[in-house]
Amino acid sequence: MRAEAPYTPPMMHVADRLLSAVQRCGAPLCVGLDPVVGKLPAALQTLGATKPASAIESFSLAVLAACVRVAPVVKIQSACYERYGVDGMKALAATLESAREHGYEVILDAKRGDIGISAEHYAAAAFEAARADWVTVNAYLGADGLAPFVKHDHGAFALVRTSNPGGDALQSLRLSDGRSVAEAVADLVADAGKAALGGAGYSSLGAVVGATKPADAARLRGRMPHTLFLVPGYGAQGGGIADIKPCFNADGRGAIITASRSIIYAFTNDDDDWAGSIRRAAETTHHELAEGLRA
Amino acid sequence: MRAEAPYTPPMMHVADRLLSAVQRCGAPLCVGLDPVVGKLPAALQTLGATKPASAIESFSLAVLAACVRVAPVVKIQSACYERYGVDGMKALAATLESAREHGYEVILDAKRGDIGISAEHYAAAAFEAARADWVTVNAYLGADGLAPFVKHDHGAFALVRTSNPGGDALQSLRLSDGRSVAEAVADLVADAGKAALGGAGYSSLGAVVGATKPADAARLRGRMPHTLFLVPGYGAQGGGIADIKPCFNADGRGAIITASRSIIYAFTNDDDDWAGSIRRAAETTHHELAEGLRA
Repeated sequence: MRAEAPYTPPMMHVADRLLSAVQRCGAPLCVGLDPVVGKLPAALQTLGATKPASAIESFSLAVLAACVRVAPVVKIQSACYERYGVDGMKALAATLESAREHGYEVILDAKRGDIGISAEHYAAAAFEAARADWVTVNAYLGADGLAPFVKHDHGAFALVRTSNPGGDALQSLRLSDGRSVAEAVADLVADAGKAALGGAGYSSLGAVVGATKPADAARLRGRMPHTLFLVPGYGAQGGGIADIKPCFNADGRGAIITASRSIIYAFTNDDDDWAGSIRRAAETTHHELAEGLRA
Repeated sequence: MRAEAPYTPPMMHVADRLLSAVQRCGAPLCVGLDPVVGKLPAALQTLGATKPASAIESFSLAVLAACVRVAPVVKIQSACYERYGVDGMKALAATLESAREHGYEVILDAKRGDIGISAEHYAAAAFEAARADWVTVNAYLGADGLAPFVKHDHGAFALVRTSNPGGDALQSLRLSDGRSVAEAVADLVADAGKAALGGAGYSSLGAVVGATKPADAARLRGRMPHTLFLVPGYGAQGGGIADIKPCFNADGRGAIITASRSIIYAFTNDDDDWAGSIRRAAETTHHELAEGLRA
Protein backbone atom coordinates (compact mmCIF):
# COMPACT_ATOMS: atom_id res chain seq x y z
CA MET A 1 0.00 0.00 0.00
CA ARG A 2 1.34 3.41 -0.94
CA ALA A 3 1.76 5.92 1.93
CA GLU A 4 -0.21 9.07 1.24
CA ALA A 5 0.92 12.55 2.18
CA PRO A 6 -1.12 13.88 5.10
CA TYR A 7 -3.79 16.36 4.02
CA THR A 8 -2.91 20.00 4.81
CA PRO A 9 -5.67 22.55 4.25
CA PRO A 10 -4.50 25.57 2.26
CA MET A 11 -3.28 28.44 4.43
CA MET A 12 -5.78 31.30 4.75
CA HIS A 13 -4.67 34.80 3.73
CA VAL A 14 -3.48 36.58 6.87
CA ALA A 15 -5.86 39.54 6.47
CA ASP A 16 -8.86 37.24 5.95
CA ARG A 17 -7.82 35.28 9.02
CA LEU A 18 -7.62 38.45 11.12
CA LEU A 19 -11.01 39.72 9.97
CA SER A 20 -12.58 36.34 10.54
CA ALA A 21 -11.18 36.26 14.10
CA VAL A 22 -12.65 39.72 14.75
CA GLN A 23 -16.03 38.69 13.39
CA ARG A 24 -16.10 35.53 15.51
CA CYS A 25 -15.23 37.51 18.63
CA GLY A 26 -17.67 40.36 17.98
CA ALA A 27 -15.28 43.29 18.38
CA PRO A 28 -12.00 44.42 16.75
CA LEU A 29 -10.17 44.43 20.08
CA CYS A 30 -6.44 43.92 20.36
CA VAL A 31 -4.87 43.65 23.80
CA GLY A 32 -1.53 45.43 23.93
CA LEU A 33 0.85 43.39 26.06
CA ASP A 34 3.56 45.80 27.28
CA PRO A 35 4.63 44.26 30.59
CA VAL A 36 6.82 46.39 32.87
CA VAL A 37 8.17 44.99 36.14
CA GLY A 38 7.34 48.08 38.21
CA LYS A 39 3.65 47.80 37.32
CA LEU A 40 3.13 44.08 37.98
CA PRO A 41 0.64 42.89 40.61
CA ALA A 42 2.00 42.75 44.18
CA ALA A 43 1.99 38.94 43.97
CA LEU A 44 4.66 39.07 41.22
CA GLN A 45 6.80 41.88 42.63
CA THR A 46 9.09 39.63 44.68
CA LEU A 47 9.87 37.47 41.66
CA GLY A 48 10.27 40.66 39.61
CA ALA A 49 12.98 41.95 41.91
CA THR A 50 15.26 38.98 41.31
CA LYS A 51 14.06 37.43 38.05
CA PRO A 52 12.38 40.19 36.02
CA ALA A 53 12.11 38.15 32.82
CA SER A 54 10.35 35.30 34.67
CA ALA A 55 7.98 37.78 36.30
CA ILE A 56 6.94 39.39 33.02
CA GLU A 57 6.54 35.93 31.48
CA SER A 58 4.19 34.84 34.30
CA PHE A 59 2.25 38.07 33.96
CA SER A 60 2.06 37.74 30.16
CA LEU A 61 0.68 34.21 30.34
CA ALA A 62 -1.92 35.34 32.88
CA VAL A 63 -3.04 38.25 30.69
CA LEU A 64 -3.33 35.96 27.67
CA ALA A 65 -5.41 33.46 29.64
CA ALA A 66 -7.59 36.26 31.07
CA CYS A 67 -8.47 37.83 27.71
CA VAL A 68 -9.23 34.66 25.74
CA ARG A 69 -12.39 34.97 23.61
CA VAL A 70 -12.75 38.67 24.53
CA ALA A 71 -9.83 39.88 22.44
CA PRO A 72 -9.22 38.11 19.13
CA VAL A 73 -5.83 39.76 18.65
CA VAL A 74 -2.83 40.39 20.88
CA LYS A 75 -0.01 42.84 20.20
CA ILE A 76 3.16 41.90 22.05
CA GLN A 77 5.67 44.72 22.64
CA SER A 78 9.06 43.18 21.85
CA ALA A 79 11.06 45.92 23.65
CA CYS A 80 9.64 44.93 27.05
CA TYR A 81 11.23 41.48 26.68
CA GLU A 82 14.37 42.43 24.72
CA ARG A 83 15.57 44.62 27.56
CA TYR A 84 16.30 41.44 29.55
CA GLY A 85 18.61 39.95 26.92
CA VAL A 86 18.60 36.19 26.38
CA ASP A 87 16.31 35.61 29.41
CA GLY A 88 13.89 38.15 27.99
CA MET A 89 13.91 36.42 24.61
CA LYS A 90 13.02 33.14 26.31
CA ALA A 91 10.13 34.89 28.05
CA LEU A 92 9.04 36.36 24.72
CA ALA A 93 9.17 32.94 23.05
CA ALA A 94 7.03 31.43 25.84
CA THR A 95 4.55 34.31 25.55
CA LEU A 96 4.29 33.93 21.78
CA GLU A 97 3.75 30.19 22.11
CA SER A 98 1.00 30.66 24.68
CA ALA A 99 -0.69 33.27 22.45
CA ARG A 100 -0.70 30.84 19.53
CA GLU A 101 -2.06 28.02 21.69
CA HIS A 102 -4.91 30.24 22.89
CA GLY A 103 -5.75 30.97 19.25
CA TYR A 104 -4.97 34.68 19.21
CA GLU A 105 -3.94 36.41 16.02
CA VAL A 106 -0.46 37.52 17.07
CA ILE A 107 1.14 40.86 16.25
CA LEU A 108 4.79 41.18 17.25
CA ASP A 109 5.22 44.90 17.91
CA ALA A 110 8.90 45.18 17.02
CA LYS A 111 8.92 48.16 14.61
CA ARG A 112 11.65 46.62 12.51
CA GLY A 113 12.96 48.23 9.36
CA ASP A 114 16.04 47.63 7.26
CA ILE A 115 17.10 47.19 3.66
CA GLY A 116 17.68 44.24 1.37
CA ILE A 117 18.89 41.06 2.97
CA SER A 118 18.68 42.54 6.49
CA ALA A 119 14.93 43.06 6.04
CA GLU A 120 14.71 39.40 5.01
CA HIS A 121 16.51 38.41 8.21
CA TYR A 122 14.02 40.43 10.27
CA ALA A 123 11.14 38.77 8.44
CA ALA A 124 12.67 35.38 9.28
CA ALA A 125 13.04 36.51 12.92
CA ALA A 126 9.37 37.50 13.11
CA PHE A 127 7.73 34.70 11.13
CA GLU A 128 10.11 31.73 11.43
CA ALA A 129 11.78 32.22 14.83
CA ALA A 130 8.98 34.07 16.67
CA ARG A 131 6.20 32.57 14.48
CA ALA A 132 4.07 35.71 14.72
CA ASP A 133 1.24 36.37 12.26
CA TRP A 134 2.09 40.05 11.89
CA VAL A 135 4.97 42.34 12.77
CA THR A 136 5.07 46.13 12.96
CA VAL A 137 7.60 47.77 10.62
CA ASN A 138 9.02 51.19 9.77
CA ALA A 139 8.56 52.43 6.19
CA TYR A 140 11.26 55.12 6.15
CA LEU A 141 13.54 52.90 4.03
CA GLY A 142 11.00 52.49 1.24
CA ALA A 143 9.17 49.66 -0.48
CA ASP A 144 12.16 47.31 -0.84
CA GLY A 145 12.44 47.29 2.95
CA LEU A 146 8.76 46.30 3.27
CA ALA A 147 8.53 43.56 0.65
CA PRO A 148 9.99 40.66 2.69
CA PHE A 149 7.31 41.11 5.35
CA VAL A 150 4.32 41.05 3.02
CA LYS A 151 3.19 37.55 2.09
CA HIS A 152 0.05 35.43 1.85
CA ASP A 153 0.14 33.84 5.28
CA HIS A 154 1.81 36.60 7.29
CA GLY A 155 1.91 40.37 7.11
CA ALA A 156 3.09 43.67 8.54
CA PHE A 157 1.70 46.94 9.86
CA ALA A 158 3.83 49.87 8.73
CA LEU A 159 4.06 53.00 10.88
CA VAL A 160 2.15 55.76 9.12
CA ARG A 161 0.88 58.09 11.86
CA THR A 162 2.00 57.68 15.45
CA SER A 163 0.14 58.85 18.55
CA ASN A 164 3.07 60.45 20.41
CA PRO A 165 3.48 64.25 20.67
CA GLY A 166 6.84 64.23 18.85
CA GLY A 167 5.40 62.32 15.89
CA ASP A 168 4.14 65.59 14.36
CA ALA A 169 7.67 66.97 13.89
CA LEU A 170 8.21 64.88 10.78
CA GLN A 171 4.85 63.26 9.97
CA SER A 172 2.89 66.55 9.71
CA LEU A 173 5.37 68.33 7.45
CA ARG A 174 3.80 69.49 4.19
CA LEU A 175 5.23 68.35 0.85
CA SER A 176 5.35 70.62 -2.19
CA ASP A 177 2.55 68.53 -3.74
CA GLY A 178 0.25 69.28 -0.80
CA ARG A 179 0.47 65.92 0.95
CA SER A 180 1.79 65.55 4.47
CA VAL A 181 4.75 63.23 5.00
CA ALA A 182 2.39 60.76 6.70
CA GLU A 183 0.13 60.87 3.62
CA ALA A 184 3.12 60.17 1.38
CA VAL A 185 3.97 57.17 3.55
CA ALA A 186 0.32 56.11 3.33
CA ASP A 187 0.49 56.21 -0.49
CA LEU A 188 3.71 54.19 -0.41
CA VAL A 189 2.09 51.62 1.89
CA ALA A 190 -1.12 51.42 -0.20
CA ASP A 191 0.96 50.89 -3.32
CA ALA A 192 3.34 48.33 -1.79
CA GLY A 193 0.37 46.37 -0.43
CA LYS A 194 -1.62 46.15 -3.67
CA ALA A 195 -0.07 42.88 -4.76
CA ALA A 196 -1.04 41.11 -1.53
CA LEU A 197 -4.84 41.41 -1.25
CA GLY A 198 -6.86 38.69 0.45
CA GLY A 199 -10.36 37.52 -0.43
CA ALA A 200 -12.02 40.26 1.67
CA GLY A 201 -10.12 42.95 -0.21
CA TYR A 202 -7.57 43.78 2.47
CA SER A 203 -3.81 43.59 2.05
CA SER A 204 -1.26 41.79 4.19
CA LEU A 205 0.49 45.15 4.42
CA GLY A 206 -1.41 47.16 7.04
CA ALA A 207 -0.79 50.57 8.63
CA VAL A 208 -0.31 51.83 12.19
CA VAL A 209 -2.50 54.91 12.63
CA GLY A 210 -2.72 56.48 16.09
CA ALA A 211 -6.16 57.01 17.64
CA THR A 212 -5.30 60.50 18.85
CA LYS A 213 -5.49 62.20 15.44
CA PRO A 214 -9.05 61.54 14.11
CA ALA A 215 -8.88 64.16 11.32
CA ASP A 216 -5.68 62.59 10.02
CA ALA A 217 -7.20 59.14 10.35
CA ALA A 218 -10.12 60.05 8.08
CA ARG A 219 -7.81 61.34 5.35
CA LEU A 220 -5.55 58.30 5.69
CA ARG A 221 -8.53 55.93 5.46
CA GLY A 222 -9.42 57.55 2.14
CA ARG A 223 -5.91 57.07 0.77
CA MET A 224 -5.62 53.43 1.90
CA PRO A 225 -8.99 51.75 1.21
CA HIS A 226 -7.52 48.23 1.12
CA THR A 227 -5.28 48.62 4.16
CA LEU A 228 -6.01 47.29 7.64
CA PHE A 229 -5.37 49.91 10.32
CA LEU A 230 -3.76 48.93 13.60
CA VAL A 231 -4.87 51.68 15.96
CA PRO A 232 -2.95 52.17 19.21
CA GLY A 233 -3.83 54.84 21.75
CA TYR A 234 -7.36 53.77 22.69
CA GLY A 235 -8.17 54.23 26.38
CA ALA A 236 -5.14 55.26 28.43
CA GLN A 237 -3.57 57.42 25.69
CA GLY A 238 -6.80 59.44 25.37
CA GLY A 239 -8.48 58.13 22.23
CA GLY A 240 -12.23 57.33 22.46
CA ILE A 241 -14.93 55.85 20.16
CA ALA A 242 -15.33 59.09 18.17
CA ASP A 243 -11.59 59.17 17.55
CA ILE A 244 -11.39 55.65 16.18
CA LYS A 245 -14.50 55.66 13.98
CA PRO A 246 -12.72 57.33 11.04
CA CYS A 247 -10.28 54.40 10.98
CA PHE A 248 -13.00 52.05 9.71
CA ASN A 249 -14.34 51.67 6.19
CA ALA A 250 -18.04 52.23 5.45
CA ASP A 251 -18.65 48.48 5.79
CA GLY A 252 -17.57 48.68 9.46
CA ARG A 253 -14.38 46.76 8.87
CA GLY A 254 -10.73 47.57 8.34
CA ALA A 255 -9.39 48.53 11.77
CA ILE A 256 -8.05 46.74 14.85
CA ILE A 257 -8.18 48.77 18.07
CA THR A 258 -5.44 48.29 20.63
CA ALA A 259 -5.95 48.96 24.31
CA SER A 260 -2.99 48.28 26.51
CA ARG A 261 -2.56 49.95 29.90
CA SER A 262 -6.32 50.35 30.46
CA ILE A 263 -6.67 46.55 30.33
CA ILE A 264 -3.43 44.94 31.47
CA TYR A 265 -3.01 47.22 34.50
CA ALA A 266 -6.70 47.31 35.47
CA PHE A 267 -6.03 46.16 39.03
CA THR A 268 -5.23 47.92 42.28
CA ASN A 269 -2.16 47.32 44.41
CA ASP A 270 -3.83 44.98 46.88
CA ASP A 271 -5.99 43.21 44.28
CA ASP A 272 -6.06 39.46 45.03
CA ASP A 273 -8.04 38.79 41.87
CA TRP A 274 -5.88 40.85 39.51
CA ALA A 275 -6.37 38.43 36.61
CA GLY A 276 -10.14 38.74 37.10
CA SER A 277 -9.83 42.53 37.03
CA ILE A 278 -7.91 42.31 33.76
CA ARG A 279 -10.61 40.04 32.33
CA ARG A 280 -13.38 42.45 33.37
CA ALA A 281 -11.54 45.43 31.85
CA ALA A 282 -11.17 43.51 28.58
CA GLU A 283 -14.89 42.67 28.66
CA THR A 284 -15.77 46.33 29.28
CA THR A 285 -13.62 47.44 26.35
CA HIS A 286 -15.07 44.70 24.14
CA HIS A 287 -18.58 45.92 25.01
CA GLU A 288 -17.64 49.59 24.40
CA LEU A 289 -16.27 48.76 20.98
CA ALA A 290 -19.08 46.40 19.97
CA GLU A 291 -21.76 48.92 21.01
CA GLY A 292 -19.94 52.09 20.01
CA LEU A 293 -19.04 50.91 16.54
CA ARG A 294 -22.57 49.61 15.86
CA ALA A 295 -24.12 53.02 16.70
CA MET B 1 40.87 51.36 58.89
CA ARG B 2 38.05 52.71 56.75
CA ALA B 3 37.42 50.89 53.48
CA GLU B 4 37.70 53.30 50.57
CA ALA B 5 35.57 53.13 47.46
CA PRO B 6 37.64 51.89 44.50
CA TYR B 7 38.65 54.68 42.15
CA THR B 8 36.64 54.80 38.93
CA PRO B 9 37.85 57.19 36.24
CA PRO B 10 35.06 59.36 34.83
CA MET B 11 33.39 57.88 31.75
CA MET B 12 34.51 59.49 28.48
CA HIS B 13 31.84 61.00 26.22
CA VAL B 14 30.91 58.35 23.64
CA ALA B 15 31.69 60.57 20.62
CA ASP B 16 35.11 61.52 22.03
CA ARG B 17 35.82 57.85 22.68
CA LEU B 18 34.92 56.93 19.08
CA LEU B 19 37.07 59.70 17.58
CA SER B 20 39.96 58.79 19.82
CA ALA B 21 39.72 55.15 18.74
CA VAL B 22 39.76 56.23 15.08
CA GLN B 23 42.78 58.44 15.65
CA ARG B 24 44.70 55.68 17.44
CA CYS B 25 43.94 53.26 14.61
CA GLY B 26 44.74 55.66 11.79
CA ALA B 27 41.57 55.25 9.72
CA PRO B 28 37.82 55.67 10.33
CA LEU B 29 37.10 52.07 9.38
CA CYS B 30 34.12 50.16 10.70
CA VAL B 31 33.78 46.48 9.88
CA GLY B 32 30.17 45.55 9.19
CA LEU B 33 29.49 42.13 10.66
CA ASP B 34 26.47 40.72 8.78
CA PRO B 35 27.04 36.96 8.97
CA VAL B 36 24.87 34.75 6.75
CA VAL B 37 25.11 30.96 6.90
CA GLY B 38 25.14 30.47 3.13
CA LYS B 39 28.24 32.65 2.76
CA LEU B 40 30.38 31.14 5.53
CA PRO B 41 33.76 29.51 4.76
CA ALA B 42 33.58 25.85 3.71
CA ALA B 43 35.07 24.86 7.08
CA LEU B 44 31.95 26.20 8.87
CA GLN B 45 29.31 24.98 6.40
CA THR B 46 28.77 21.59 8.08
CA LEU B 47 28.17 23.23 11.46
CA GLY B 48 25.98 25.81 9.69
CA ALA B 49 23.68 23.12 8.31
CA THR B 50 22.75 21.81 11.76
CA LYS B 51 23.56 24.64 14.17
CA PRO B 52 23.37 27.90 12.22
CA ALA B 53 23.58 30.14 15.29
CA SER B 54 26.76 28.40 16.47
CA ALA B 55 28.26 28.70 13.00
CA ILE B 56 27.63 32.44 12.73
CA GLU B 57 28.99 32.87 16.27
CA SER B 58 32.24 31.07 15.36
CA PHE B 59 32.54 33.13 12.21
CA SER B 60 31.81 36.39 14.08
CA LEU B 61 34.50 35.71 16.67
CA ALA B 62 37.00 34.90 13.91
CA VAL B 63 36.21 38.14 12.04
CA LEU B 64 36.58 40.17 15.25
CA ALA B 65 39.95 38.55 15.99
CA ALA B 66 41.10 39.06 12.38
CA CYS B 67 40.33 42.78 12.24
CA VAL B 68 41.76 43.83 15.62
CA ARG B 69 43.82 47.04 15.43
CA VAL B 70 42.88 47.52 11.75
CA ALA B 71 39.27 48.51 12.37
CA PRO B 72 38.59 50.57 15.51
CA VAL B 73 34.83 50.12 15.19
CA VAL B 74 32.54 47.18 14.50
CA LYS B 75 28.90 47.36 13.43
CA ILE B 76 27.00 44.20 14.30
CA GLN B 77 23.83 43.53 12.29
CA SER B 78 21.28 42.37 14.86
CA ALA B 79 18.91 40.86 12.27
CA CYS B 80 21.47 38.19 11.27
CA TYR B 81 21.36 36.81 14.82
CA GLU B 82 17.71 37.52 15.70
CA ARG B 83 16.54 35.25 12.91
CA TYR B 84 17.72 32.27 14.99
CA GLY B 85 15.59 33.15 18.03
CA VAL B 86 16.99 32.46 21.50
CA ASP B 87 20.03 30.61 20.07
CA GLY B 88 20.73 33.59 17.85
CA MET B 89 20.52 35.98 20.80
CA LYS B 90 23.07 33.86 22.65
CA ALA B 91 25.37 34.06 19.60
CA LEU B 92 24.83 37.83 19.50
CA ALA B 93 25.67 38.17 23.20
CA ALA B 94 28.89 36.18 22.72
CA THR B 95 29.81 38.30 19.70
CA LEU B 96 29.18 41.54 21.59
CA GLU B 97 31.25 40.33 24.51
CA SER B 98 34.16 39.38 22.26
CA ALA B 99 33.99 42.78 20.52
CA ARG B 100 34.20 44.56 23.87
CA GLU B 101 37.12 42.38 25.01
CA HIS B 102 39.02 43.19 21.80
CA GLY B 103 38.50 46.88 22.53
CA TYR B 104 36.29 47.74 19.56
CA GLU B 105 33.82 50.60 19.72
CA VAL B 106 30.62 48.62 19.24
CA ILE B 107 27.64 49.71 17.16
CA LEU B 108 24.59 47.46 17.43
CA ASP B 109 22.89 47.85 14.05
CA ALA B 110 19.32 47.22 15.18
CA LYS B 111 17.45 50.19 13.65
CA ARG B 112 15.12 50.42 16.62
CA GLY B 113 12.49 53.09 16.96
CA ASP B 114 9.48 53.47 19.20
CA ILE B 115 7.76 56.00 21.42
CA GLY B 116 7.84 56.84 25.12
CA ILE B 117 8.49 53.99 27.47
CA SER B 118 9.03 51.50 24.63
CA ALA B 119 11.97 53.57 23.38
CA GLU B 120 13.38 53.43 26.91
CA HIS B 121 13.06 49.64 26.86
CA TYR B 122 14.97 49.47 23.56
CA ALA B 123 17.68 51.74 25.00
CA ALA B 124 17.93 49.36 27.98
CA ALA B 125 18.12 46.41 25.53
CA ALA B 126 20.98 48.04 23.60
CA PHE B 127 23.02 49.55 26.44
CA GLU B 128 22.22 47.42 29.50
CA ALA B 129 21.47 43.97 28.06
CA ALA B 130 23.67 44.09 24.93
CA ARG B 131 26.13 46.64 26.42
CA ALA B 132 26.76 48.26 23.03
CA ASP B 133 28.31 51.73 22.78
CA TRP B 134 25.98 52.82 19.99
CA VAL B 135 22.76 51.61 18.41
CA THR B 136 21.19 52.56 15.09
CA VAL B 137 17.69 54.05 15.36
CA ASN B 138 14.84 55.25 13.16
CA ALA B 139 13.79 58.90 13.53
CA TYR B 140 10.31 58.66 11.96
CA LEU B 141 8.65 58.86 15.37
CA GLY B 142 10.29 62.18 16.25
CA ALA B 143 12.58 63.53 18.95
CA ASP B 144 10.83 61.92 21.92
CA GLY B 145 11.61 58.54 20.39
CA LEU B 146 15.32 59.44 20.12
CA ALA B 147 15.92 60.98 23.55
CA PRO B 148 16.35 57.73 25.56
CA PHE B 149 19.24 56.66 23.30
CA VAL B 150 21.26 59.87 23.55
CA LYS B 151 23.41 60.05 26.67
CA HIS B 152 26.96 60.89 27.76
CA ASP B 153 28.44 57.41 27.67
CA HIS B 154 26.41 55.85 24.87
CA GLY B 155 24.75 57.11 21.73
CA ALA B 156 22.75 56.42 18.58
CA PHE B 157 22.98 56.82 14.83
CA ALA B 158 19.62 57.85 13.36
CA LEU B 159 18.74 56.85 9.79
CA VAL B 160 18.80 59.99 7.65
CA ARG B 161 19.70 58.84 4.14
CA THR B 162 19.84 55.17 3.23
CA SER B 163 21.84 53.62 0.41
CA ASN B 164 19.13 51.33 -0.99
CA PRO B 165 17.30 52.08 -4.27
CA GLY B 166 13.88 52.29 -2.55
CA GLY B 167 15.12 54.85 -0.04
CA ASP B 168 14.48 57.66 -2.52
CA ALA B 169 10.72 57.05 -2.58
CA LEU B 170 10.26 58.87 0.71
CA GLN B 171 13.62 60.45 1.57
CA SER B 172 13.95 62.47 -1.67
CA LEU B 173 10.45 63.95 -1.59
CA ARG B 174 10.47 67.75 -1.59
CA LEU B 175 8.79 69.70 1.19
CA SER B 176 6.94 72.97 0.60
CA ASP B 177 9.84 74.80 2.32
CA GLY B 178 12.33 73.44 -0.21
CA ARG B 179 13.98 70.81 1.99
CA SER B 180 13.91 67.12 1.14
CA VAL B 181 12.40 64.75 3.70
CA ALA B 182 15.93 63.50 4.47
CA GLU B 183 17.03 67.10 5.10
CA ALA B 184 14.10 67.61 7.46
CA VAL B 185 15.14 64.47 9.34
CA ALA B 186 18.71 65.83 9.38
CA ASP B 187 17.50 69.07 10.99
CA LEU B 188 15.52 67.10 13.55
CA VAL B 189 18.60 64.98 14.34
CA ALA B 190 20.93 68.01 14.55
CA ASP B 191 18.51 69.71 16.91
CA ALA B 192 17.87 66.65 19.10
CA GLY B 193 21.62 66.06 19.39
CA LYS B 194 22.58 69.59 20.45
CA ALA B 195 22.28 68.92 24.15
CA ALA B 196 24.71 66.00 24.04
CA LEU B 197 27.98 67.36 22.61
CA GLY B 198 31.30 65.90 23.70
CA GLY B 199 34.61 67.72 24.13
CA ALA B 200 35.50 67.41 20.44
CA GLY B 201 32.24 69.08 19.43
CA TYR B 202 30.39 65.99 18.25
CA SER B 203 27.08 64.77 19.60
CA SER B 204 26.17 61.35 20.92
CA LEU B 205 23.31 61.47 18.39
CA GLY B 206 24.86 60.60 15.01
CA ALA B 207 23.36 60.01 11.56
CA VAL B 208 23.37 57.13 9.07
CA VAL B 209 24.15 58.59 5.63
CA GLY B 210 24.63 56.16 2.73
CA ALA B 211 27.84 56.39 0.69
CA THR B 212 26.00 56.06 -2.61
CA LYS B 213 24.57 59.61 -2.66
CA PRO B 214 27.58 62.00 -2.46
CA ALA B 215 25.64 65.14 -3.48
CA ASP B 216 23.12 64.47 -0.72
CA ALA B 217 25.94 63.76 1.72
CA ALA B 218 27.52 67.18 1.14
CA ARG B 219 24.23 68.97 1.81
CA LEU B 220 23.57 66.86 4.89
CA ARG B 221 27.09 67.51 6.23
CA GLY B 222 26.33 71.25 6.03
CA ARG B 223 23.08 70.84 7.98
CA MET B 224 24.61 68.65 10.71
CA PRO B 225 28.06 70.08 11.54
CA HIS B 226 28.18 68.49 15.01
CA THR B 227 26.88 65.08 13.96
CA LEU B 228 29.00 61.97 13.42
CA PHE B 229 28.07 60.20 10.18
CA LEU B 230 27.94 56.43 10.03
CA VAL B 231 28.42 55.68 6.34
CA PRO B 232 27.42 52.25 5.03
CA GLY B 233 27.77 51.27 1.40
CA TYR B 234 31.56 51.54 0.98
CA GLY B 235 33.04 48.84 -1.22
CA ALA B 236 30.54 46.15 -2.16
CA GLN B 237 27.57 48.55 -2.44
CA GLY B 238 29.48 50.73 -4.90
CA GLY B 239 30.64 53.74 -2.88
CA GLY B 240 34.30 54.81 -3.30
CA ILE B 241 36.65 57.42 -1.77
CA ALA B 242 35.15 60.29 -3.80
CA ASP B 243 31.67 59.32 -2.59
CA ILE B 244 32.55 59.35 1.08
CA LYS B 245 34.69 62.52 1.20
CA PRO B 246 31.68 64.84 1.50
CA CYS B 247 30.72 63.00 4.70
CA PHE B 248 33.71 64.49 6.56
CA ASN B 249 34.10 67.95 8.03
CA ALA B 250 36.91 70.25 6.88
CA ASP B 251 39.06 69.05 9.79
CA GLY B 252 39.02 65.52 8.32
CA ARG B 253 36.85 64.13 11.09
CA GLY B 254 33.19 63.37 11.59
CA ALA B 255 32.53 60.16 9.65
CA ILE B 256 32.91 56.42 10.23
CA ILE B 257 33.07 54.33 7.06
CA THR B 258 31.54 50.86 7.09
CA ALA B 259 32.72 48.10 4.80
CA SER B 260 30.97 44.79 5.23
CA ARG B 261 30.84 42.20 2.44
CA SER B 262 34.11 43.38 0.84
CA ILE B 263 35.92 42.46 4.08
CA ILE B 264 34.05 39.68 5.85
CA TYR B 265 33.55 37.59 2.69
CA ALA B 266 37.02 38.27 1.20
CA PHE B 267 37.85 34.57 0.84
CA THR B 268 37.29 31.98 -1.85
CA ASN B 269 35.42 28.74 -1.44
CA ASP B 270 38.49 26.55 -0.94
CA ASP B 271 40.40 29.13 1.14
CA ASP B 272 42.19 27.37 4.02
CA ASP B 273 43.35 30.70 5.42
CA TRP B 274 39.98 32.48 5.25
CA ALA B 275 40.63 34.45 8.44
CA GLY B 276 43.92 35.64 6.95
CA SER B 277 42.09 36.72 3.80
CA ILE B 278 39.64 38.72 5.92
CA ARG B 279 42.53 40.33 7.78
CA ARG B 280 44.26 41.30 4.51
CA ALA B 281 41.03 42.77 3.08
CA ALA B 282 40.61 44.86 6.24
CA GLU B 283 44.23 46.03 5.95
CA THR B 284 43.68 46.98 2.29
CA THR B 285 40.56 48.97 3.18
CA HIS B 286 42.36 50.64 6.09
CA HIS B 287 45.16 51.67 3.73
CA GLU B 288 42.69 52.94 1.07
CA LEU B 289 40.91 55.08 3.63
CA ALA B 290 44.06 56.38 5.35
CA GLU B 291 45.65 57.32 2.01
CA GLY B 292 42.51 58.42 0.21
CA LEU B 293 41.28 60.69 2.94
CA ARG B 294 44.70 62.30 3.40
CA ALA B 295 44.91 63.22 -0.30
